[in-house]
Amino acid sequence: MTIKIPELNREFQQWILANIPLLRAMKLNFDSFSEHGLVMSCPLEPNINDKGTGFGGSIGTLATICGWTYTMIHARAAIDEPEAMIVEQSTSFKAPVTGSFQAVCSSPVPDDFYARLQEGRSGKLNLNISIRSEGIEAASYKGFYIARAKN
Amino acid sequence: MTIKIPELNREFQQWILANIPLLRAMKLNFDSFSEHGLVMSCPLEPNINDKGTGFGGSIGTLATICGWTYTMIHARAAIDEPEAMIVEQSTSFKAPVTGSFQAVCSSPVPDDFYARLQEGRSGKLNLNISIRSEGIEAASYKGFYIARAKN
Repeated sequence: MTIKIPELNREFQQWILANIPLLRAMKLNFDSFSEHGLVMSCPLEPNINDKGTGFGGSIGTLATICGWTYTMIHARAAIDEPEAMIVEQSTSFKAPVTGSFQAVCSSPVPDDFYARLQEGRSGKLNLNISIRSEGIEAASYKGFYIARAKN
Repeated sequence: MTIKIPELNREFQQWILANIPLLRAMKLNFDSFSEHGLVMSCPLEPNINDKGTGFGGSIGTLATICGWTYTMIHARAAIDEPEAMIVEQSTSFKAPVTGSFQAVCSSPVPDDFYARLQEGRSGKLNLNISIRSEGIEAASYKGFYIARAKN
């Protein structure tokens, strides 16, 4: 099994923003992808709610797209043209978001994920994502994603 | 215990859209509120993804705001100035959204929800929401919300 080094390049970021208009409305940033995981964030203003804090819909969406991007980055290391889908997700809201907020995903990717994709099957990933704002954890998220070769 | 008839008036709809910019980006519609429940929907276009179907973040957000609005409608029937928060949520994605999509919430509201609010405590609601598009269920959602008097 030969796996390229997973990477988040500029072209892929632009493709995501070009294809999902809601993320442009949220002013989504791709902060970094390294051995510490994938970090993505949003400013508060376009994601504010009636209480002047972060809207739960925006917090959940940032987690959803962070996990989806993490799945795609790893799927793209295994096969040329993958697609990925969210299957199940749950979010626990712990504290109000009071400024810009950041999602971090550093869940391990099992060898089986790559192997299945290279065999032409679906790769499956269970991901944990933490949403933080101003030094505290605002929400925790679990998502189950699948990736496969694009038809 | 005296409870007004819960209602979704135009002024409240406009207040929600004025205070949560992401919902304007999603082109959220308030379809109806009746004995059949609360129905809210979004067109596909501003909520599309890379596959040309409904973005999971938009589907989750429509469910989140449908549950929150349902909680607020009932809290406003009990006390004058409530606020509501999402605490926990989970979403199961079942089929792609291929057109406009609709969230329906018709969960029962226990008397205890109203009673607690009128006693100055937090009212708690567990809600089930179904997201449908073109005649099929695209996702099912469970949310746990609390409401209380605004400070």
